[in-house]
Amino acid sequence: MNVDIGNALASVASPGVSRASLERLDEQVADAHDRIEQGMKNHEHGYEALNLPQRTDPDAIRAAVEPVADADALITVGIGGSALGAATITNALADESDTEAVYLDNVDPEWVSSHLDRLDLENTAINVVSRSGTTAETLANFLVVRDAFESAGVDWTERTIVTTGDAGPLRDLSDRHDLPSLKVPDGVPGRFSALSAVGMVAAEVCGHDLEALLEGAAAEAETLSGSLFECPAYAYGATTYALDQRGAGINAMMPYAESLETAAEWFAQLWAESLGKDDLGQTPVRALGVTDQHSQLQLYRAGPRDKLVTFVSPGEAADRSIPATDVDDLAYLGDATLGELLEAEFEATEASLAAAGRPNVRLELERVDEYELGGLLYGLEAACVLAGELYAVNTFEQPAVEWAKKATRGLLGGGEFEEAEAVAEKTSLRVER
Amino acid sequence: MNVDIGNALASVASPGVSRASLERLDEQVADAHDRIEQGMKNHEHGYEALNLPQRTDPDAIRAAVEPVADADALITVGIGGSALGAATITNALADESDTEAVYLDNVDPEWVSSHLDRLDLENTAINVVSRSGTTAETLANFLVVRDAFESAGVDWTERTIVTTGDAGPLRDLSDRHDLPSLKVPDGVPGRFSALSAVGMVAAEVCGHDLEALLEGAAAEAETLSGSLFECPAYAYGATTYALDQRGAGINAMMPYAESLETAAEWFAQLWAESLGKDDLGQTPVRALGVTDQHSQLQLYRAGPRDKLVTFVSPGEAADRSIPATDVDDLAYLGDATLGELLEAEFEATEASLAAAGRPNVRLELERVDEYELGGLLYGLEAACVLAGELYAVNTFEQPAVEWAKKATRGLLGGGEFEEAEAVAEKTSLRVER
Repeated sequence: MNVDIGNALASVASPGVSRASLERLDEQVADAHDRIEQGMKNHEHGYEALNLPQRTDPDAIRAAVEPVADADALITVGIGGSALGAATITNALADESDTEAVYLDNVDPEWVSSHLDRLDLENTAINVVSRSGTTAETLANFLVVRDAFESAGVDWTERTIVTTGDAGPLRDLSDRHDLPSLKVPDGVPGRFSALSAVGMVAAEVCGHDLEALLEGAAAEAETLSGSLFECPAYAYGATTYALDQRGAGINAMMPYAESLETAAEWFAQLWAESLGKDDLGQTPVRALGVTDQHSQLQLYRAGPRDKLVTFVSPGEAADRSIPATDVDDLAYLGDATLGELLEAEFEATEASLAAAGRPNVRLELERVDEYELGGLLYGLEAACVLAGELYAVNTFEQPAVEWAKKATRGLLGGGEFEEAEAVAEKTSLRVER
Repeated sequence: MNVDIGNALASVASPGVSRASLERLDEQVADAHDRIEQGMKNHEHGYEALNLPQRTDPDAIRAAVEPVADADALITVGIGGSALGAATITNALADESDTEAVYLDNVDPEWVSSHLDRLDLENTAINVVSRSGTTAETLANFLVVRDAFESAGVDWTERTIVTTGDAGPLRDLSDRHDLPSLKVPDGVPGRFSALSAVGMVAAEVCGHDLEALLEGAAAEAETLSGSLFECPAYAYGATTYALDQRGAGINAMMPYAESLETAAEWFAQLWAESLGKDDLGQTPVRALGVTDQHSQLQLYRAGPRDKLVTFVSPGEAADRSIPATDVDDLAYLGDATLGELLEAEFEATEASLAAAGRPNVRLELERVDEYELGGLLYGLEAACVLAGELYAVNTFEQPAVEWAKKATRGLLGGGEFEEAEAVAEKTSLRVER
């Protein structure tokens, strides 16, 4: 990806960061880069994610997937980092695939049933993903899916691929039934695992080019260097950090392509779970151009000066003409294409924020394909790791999630947890209809 | 809807609002209510939206829709307030309908084409919605859709319903072709129009109960009174305002049902466009339970103390058992249903935020049906109008959106606009791969 931070400069926006401040910050970037490079070299927890372009083996993924390569649909059973990376890739490239990718990343019973009822299970494959093999939502859904296959008379053991850690219930299961299985790589937190088997099993079943994904990521990795002025990922990470320090506590990720909507979801997890700790961290907001111009733009342009808008420009794409019309007031549309309208709206929205002194950054892809997606995923991960160094937080942990997991388990009778008892003590002030 | 603001009290959370502060604020609520009541009585711009439960005529909508009542799919061509209200209703109730509701609320050419290519246009109806009849995205898409019908040999004039203002290109078109048409009600901004023809044409084509929608809204209207302690909508509006004043500049709307995901999108427009002005206004964030527990909860619980989480509890729903398993560590799941797991996760997450002193509010529905949805839509609109009074902003305008509209038009050769010239003057600081 290329990055343009011009509209985040103090000469344009408030909050904004001056060129001189960026140059001072660049000394911290150099130190952070040394730390990151060392972490990668020593295969340290988290930093190891940035080695995935070299480490992931597409042949192993292809071999595991081979028995279900002809599936019409793939149900990925996973949640959070076990679903969002894969969903980002397959949703971005869905136009290129004949295989429908479904993500069971929620336990809403009506919604789960609606998917299982409509799919032709005989031609559907299952991709179950959980490092621990004990994630409540994933395991509950997997039990439900397996049962639905059995009820439909389909042998799920012929149609299931497992991606999990070295041990745990899912590893035991895959051993017992001799299922094709892959490993969640050590040292790689879920939200950084898109470029491993976690994200790439679904990509392979949907027929996408795994090598190109990894090559795009590798090209981005090549740019990692000691200066934000030479590395798009660091330019983005350092700018978002500097803007947060100056009051932009919100980061709205706004791609101008429907195909990249899930990429904004993926980014939201990456940013929130990695940086949201110690009372620090920007709050990511998922937006979509042009749609949200008619929903969020009023706020972005005239609300509190607490946000940065990150545009993602998708580059070249198939286009479609707008038919001519004899209505005077609309004639200008008939001279254009939908793509030209989309591009004009993007440039207009970006300029509209700049004209109001609202900071924004542009991430540019050349097109939405495997190579560019690999670069985007890797680039944003590297940006996040850099930002984590600058904030000096523990980027690769997510301790605040544990409390609710224990409480849930306790509430369902899965053991004694004091957290479950706290649930009953809720303070209420009810106003009823 | 019922509202529980207990976890937003200062005794639980920081930021939080004390009971005594709420009682003082209630004097402002009483004054604001007088203003709202007067606005409704005098049919003033914006306030008129709160009269829709009495004003909307379901018979007129049914009559207009009758020619396409048997459609297999309905394409709604509209954007922002012309799409989100309808989408909220039909997506919430999609399980009850055999008609697929598609919303062309973006001009992404590949995405528009993918819908038009897959739909059976002969059995598809068109619902085009724009008050002015000149909204660029909507009119461009309508020209494209019309052309696709013609290319497929389908007479679009037999299958199109128009909802627009008294005058403009869409009104002219519907007169010329004698199309069934409805009026965007005067005095009702798009984002407040879900309970008019704007939101209800799609609901009717999909077979939903318009009377129940309006009755649910009317029941909510009955609760409007001079005290936040007696009116759920005002309790919500006043609490969010008080929390924003105390530092919670972000409001994450987190329903625990996939069917309510669009309701969070609709809320985000309502909140952002109505309150985001004069450097004021909370930033709405769209979240989803349980999915975002594995994405956003770390940030919500341990990040900056700048946010309120609004849970929406969907109430009764169809359930599905989790099959038993002989894996010890997962046995507790087999004793539960997916619905029980979902409910336990909701309670655990709510308690987890409270235990960390993070403010949250609960909106409760009895179930997801027309009556409860009507109440939710109306209740949140009334909450927004109240909040607008407390902020003393112009709730019903969205002036900051105009700049980009002019720039877009200028860029496409639709006239001379100085805004278009500003686009070329962009400040760049590019970092390239």
